[in-house]
Amino acid sequence: MSLTIAPQPLTAEAFAPFGDVLEAVGTPDKMINQGLCGRFHDRAILDFSDGQAGISLFDAEARSLPMSLDMVERHPDGSQAFLPLSRAPFLVVVAPDDGGKPGTPVAFITAPGQGVNYHRNVWHGVCAPLSEQGQFAVVDRIGDGPNLEEFWFKEEITIQG
Amino acid sequence: MSLTIAPQPLTAEAFAPFGDVLEAVGTPDKMINQGLCGRFHDRAILDFSDGQAGISLFDAEARSLPMSLDMVERHPDGSQAFLPLSRAPFLVVVAPDDGGKPGTPVAFITAPGQGVNYHRNVWHGVCAPLSEQGQFAVVDRIGDGPNLEEFWFKEEITIQG
Repeated sequence: MSLTIAPQPLTAEAFAPFGDVLEAVGTPDKMINQGLCGRFHDRAILDFSDGQAGISLFDAEARSLPMSLDMVERHPDGSQAFLPLSRAPFLVVVAPDDGGKPGTPVAFITAPGQGVNYHRNVWHGVCAPLSEQGQFAVVDRIGDGPNLEEFWFKEEITIQG
Repeated sequence: MSLTIAPQPLTAEAFAPFGDVLEAVGTPDKMINQGLCGRFHDRAILDFSDGQAGISLFDAEARSLPMSLDMVERHPDGSQAFLPLSRAPFLVVVAPDDGGKPGTPVAFITAPGQGVNYHRNVWHGVCAPLSEQGQFAVVDRIGDGPNLEEFWFKEEITIQG
């Protein structure tokens, strides 16, 4: 069996079952700094169970499309936000849960200014920058335990270019 | 009275009294994703007192140097991290506390890939991107109360270009 997936532009609506798109669009909740800065307030559903919030940095190697999707992973104990430290696009792959295994994956490509927050225990692909600018700030759970489940696909899955 | 401050390149050492520089430099704490991604683990001292962590987005107007520093602010109830969603530089102004008021400010300019986390109750300038790319993810306290103290300088303070 083989499956080919066409990535779509990342939108909050399409991504809602999996997490939050973090972007400064629309009307700010509040203007601060004497009217010079808009605050889009508290836009991620964070859940770190028995752990606590931390900020880590990721530096990931560039991927290119088409690419093979070998696996997805999930973090049973916490949400995980990826905030790109550049305006370069990255690939976001998620999958619904289907009885403890990932269902059919869905792929998105980000626009400049977009980050994502994967909700707790949502299947997702690994950090996949589509350029050499592969640095991200990551807000996730700091705590005990592995907090990681991987699923390796048996079928060939290709993310289209 | 007037004061002119020359901004310096942002380094973790110089910034340490005020907060954390968030950047993927040096040796990662861990390699993940089959060796394709370095994780620099838990690099910010987060403190949200009686509140909790949240991710907000800021969209700030560009500033240019030289600029006048009219005020600094601090957040008595929580730390605040600024993670630029671009590789454009931004201005970071901090000041030591001197008996409940800010002492002499210190100014830094970031390099690509650098964010900052202001420790709880540290005096700092407002969000000041030095280009049109003024979008940031901000990790700070979500909770009750104003959590804001402002100090307006009486003297003229200029941040040099």
